[in-house]
Amino acid sequence: MKSDELFALLRRRGVLWPSAEIYGGAQGLYDYGPLGTALKRRIEDTWSAWFLGLSEDYHLIEPAEILPEAVVRASGHLENFTDPEVSCDSCHAVFRADTLLETVRPEGVDGLSAARIGTILAESSISCPSCGKRTLSVPRPFNMMFGLDFGVTGDERVYLQPETAQGSYLAFARMWDVGRHALPLGIAVIGRAYRNEIAPRQVLFRMRAFTQAELQIFFDPAAFPVPFDSVRQEELPVLRVPARERGQESPERVSAEKLVESGLPEFYVYHMVQSYRFYRDVLKYPADAIRLFEKSDAERAFYNRIQFDVEVHLESLGGYKELGAVHYRGDYDLTRHGQGSAKDLSVTAKDGHRVLPHVLELTFGVDRNLWALADTHLVRDGDRSVWKLPPYLAPVALGVFPLLRKEHTAYARALTAELARDGISVEFDDAGTIGKRYARMDEAGTPYCVTVDGGTVASEGAERGTVTVRLRDTKAQERVARNDLASRIRSSLQPPRPSG
Amino acid sequence: MKSDELFALLRRRGVLWPSAEIYGGAQGLYDYGPLGTALKRRIEDTWSAWFLGLSEDYHLIEPAEILPEAVVRASGHLENFTDPEVSCDSCHAVFRADTLLETVRPEGVDGLSAARIGTILAESSISCPSCGKRTLSVPRPFNMMFGLDFGVTGDERVYLQPETAQGSYLAFARMWDVGRHALPLGIAVIGRAYRNEIAPRQVLFRMRAFTQAELQIFFDPAAFPVPFDSVRQEELPVLRVPARERGQESPERVSAEKLVESGLPEFYVYHMVQSYRFYRDVLKYPADAIRLFEKSDAERAFYNRIQFDVEVHLESLGGYKELGAVHYRGDYDLTRHGQGSAKDLSVTAKDGHRVLPHVLELTFGVDRNLWALADTHLVRDGDRSVWKLPPYLAPVALGVFPLLRKEHTAYARALTAELARDGISVEFDDAGTIGKRYARMDEAGTPYCVTVDGGTVASEGAERGTVTVRLRDTKAQERVARNDLASRIRSSLQPPRPSG
Repeated sequence: MKSDELFALLRRRGVLWPSAEIYGGAQGLYDYGPLGTALKRRIEDTWSAWFLGLSEDYHLIEPAEILPEAVVRASGHLENFTDPEVSCDSCHAVFRADTLLETVRPEGVDGLSAARIGTILAESSISCPSCGKRTLSVPRPFNMMFGLDFGVTGDERVYLQPETAQGSYLAFARMWDVGRHALPLGIAVIGRAYRNEIAPRQVLFRMRAFTQAELQIFFDPAAFPVPFDSVRQEELPVLRVPARERGQESPERVSAEKLVESGLPEFYVYHMVQSYRFYRDVLKYPADAIRLFEKSDAERAFYNRIQFDVEVHLESLGGYKELGAVHYRGDYDLTRHGQGSAKDLSVTAKDGHRVLPHVLELTFGVDRNLWALADTHLVRDGDRSVWKLPPYLAPVALGVFPLLRKEHTAYARALTAELARDGISVEFDDAGTIGKRYARMDEAGTPYCVTVDGGTVASEGAERGTVTVRLRDTKAQERVARNDLASRIRSSLQPPRPSG
Repeated sequence: MKSDELFALLRRRGVLWPSAEIYGGAQGLYDYGPLGTALKRRIEDTWSAWFLGLSEDYHLIEPAEILPEAVVRASGHLENFTDPEVSCDSCHAVFRADTLLETVRPEGVDGLSAARIGTILAESSISCPSCGKRTLSVPRPFNMMFGLDFGVTGDERVYLQPETAQGSYLAFARMWDVGRHALPLGIAVIGRAYRNEIAPRQVLFRMRAFTQAELQIFFDPAAFPVPFDSVRQEELPVLRVPARERGQESPERVSAEKLVESGLPEFYVYHMVQSYRFYRDVLKYPADAIRLFEKSDAERAFYNRIQFDVEVHLESLGGYKELGAVHYRGDYDLTRHGQGSAKDLSVTAKDGHRVLPHVLELTFGVDRNLWALADTHLVRDGDRSVWKLPPYLAPVALGVFPLLRKEHTAYARALTAELARDGISVEFDDAGTIGKRYARMDEAGTPYCVTVDGGTVASEGAERGTVTVRLRDTKAQERVARNDLASRIRSSLQPPRPSG
């Protein structure tokens, strides 16, 4: 499905829609409806189960999403978190310089400096897309953070966080104090990030407020022990920088072992494998649609030493799109915040030596993955539209239908209430034919539907107290005792955790 | 415990701390650590189970937390969402006028207009608290919203939402379209609200960014049917306006029936009862600490026709504090947004007549309740400090301990992993004596602890495969088969739902 078509479907189904829709929408902001909200929460829980499952010493926290100016000065965002903008001296319209340049430079502009972009723009003498005159300014850096003034006098300048990572860095000293005083220590955050995008676009891919799930792992650079043998043979679909420079777009399958031989640290490759498994085995993106895209020195974010983006090929957006990444940030962050706060952020390891921890960041775009789960899992199956979400991601796990409205409704309602009390996300539906109810549930991704019929409520007979369970993906039907229902499906509703 | 003492304890335990602590903190912002984050999530889930459990037609959505200017103009917040401020003409310090006035007017200033506050301030000739001169200005309205500029030219002015309710109103038309076309329709939001408080204080009670859970119920004013008979006899601890005017502070117990006889609508009293039950029976605040505090015409928020706050007496803050409320907002919101957006927000009811729905708002402060759950449930029991949270609110449901480190660790770890895969929030702990581990879990609110010992791992004998379960509140111990553990405790971990 094309992006417009997919968005129209999601909007019609109440999964998501433009924010403040009745006022004509707000640029780069979206609302999640009931299905979208439940799916988003399940994605977050599934992410947590997997990544916090990597160690007992990884914890989820919820920091405030507003940062004092001293923090973003120290982090480098006040200085570096910019996009190049150009304005037109005639009509005063403003544009992103790199987006303008892409119109004449199809190979892209990633990694070019603002100065270099300016030179190329001048040489190619692009006209203003708004008034058509050749009066575009030289590119200027435009900071993408949103600033706020605290208090009535505005003497306290603060910023909406441009990434959730800062909350983990600010919390490190406190978390060290309350924890086991051991590295590695993982601090995860699921929260909003805010960016004043000059040109929000591609629905959930370039928003002005979005949700990130990030795990920052603080470790001793002298020793980050990982069970590398357990992943040594795993083949990863990587696209390395040299291959990219040769114009290659498809990944090559390279074993974890070979990646380490090529110079990547074991701890880094181990976490690439665990991330890859999450996208392939947990979110269940098609294996051949995933690639691990290495960023070059020029392209990497200013704080990163090694960066591979996890990309998935999406039909709706016509190409590979970044859904997450593995960032080795070195000691950049704690060094900067140590200087900025004038606090010593080094810690004493078990063997007594002082160490300033390095950081490995596993970052994940919640909204983007929600979109990608629609792109890849919402399929046509004959005349059915079926959202083939894994059960643990399904907004509604189970639909309950009375076969006949009058006779089976009370029983079906009681069953619905009982399953809800049992912690299962369940929805009662008695509108229209059973076929129409299946169709609604299929489209919403519900893996199980249960029908209460004459056999169920009969005063005797083999079917008394049993219901028909119908499976979304196979359409297979089976009679199951009502009392066994919850235990039969419960394990499929638990998100997977890494083994060992 | 006093507020300072309680905050120090919560901070030391990593429940919460001042945001950007290493930079000296940020006024009115707090971070939640692992225990606080998990508790907050459980409070949200418990709130959802109860209030969305009131009807199949109540849904949770997640709107963007940023509102275009046209929205806050229509909602009245641009004009009315103000606190009176005064500044000093000598030293230029700025103060909240009502806070200043409280220093000379102990009866409080609720319900006074800015003009009246100005007159009283002038008459009492208060000096500037900062420089001591009598040069305070007349009070001016200060808008508490945070504004942002979208885009590079700042031509799109937006605001961080001052309450989550607006998201529900903006979504009403879309939700009507995707839903069953029936009233009442409930739209719930759990999200952040932002207020530029002149004087943030009392830790989680007057923050600049905080989490609200709100259910907006849209209903036909001609008919909002509720099963009133099921609550008719319930006695509510109300403090009505006339009693307040006589100087009374304690509530009186009045039956739901009598409240309706006094003129309150049945639908309103029904929801007061369900709210009261949530605070008393689900969050388990002591019944004699709760009061339903009626606001007078002058005190009510500008959009409300009837308003009772739910208040709980907190030792840490030395009095009753508002934790939630029941607001009858009439047709204020849809009328204003209908005008503001030039969209007809009325709907066609089942019987064919057009109706502009009225709104009943059930609002709830998540952070405030987290604090109140610490104030009321974190108790000294002899030499123990025990957080007596109901099991469904406990951040960690179950602690798993090997009795001896060497012999029982593998078994205990496997059990921990198995329970986690089963969806139970579980923590492995092998540090220190069993007594110390119990103490840590007690203080964190964990209701169940399990010890793996020689009997568990024995190759034969009656205790093989059984573990010792110890209950937090009674300290009672019992041997339970490992395989029965999850099913034994599961139902206690499910948040209650309203019956019927």
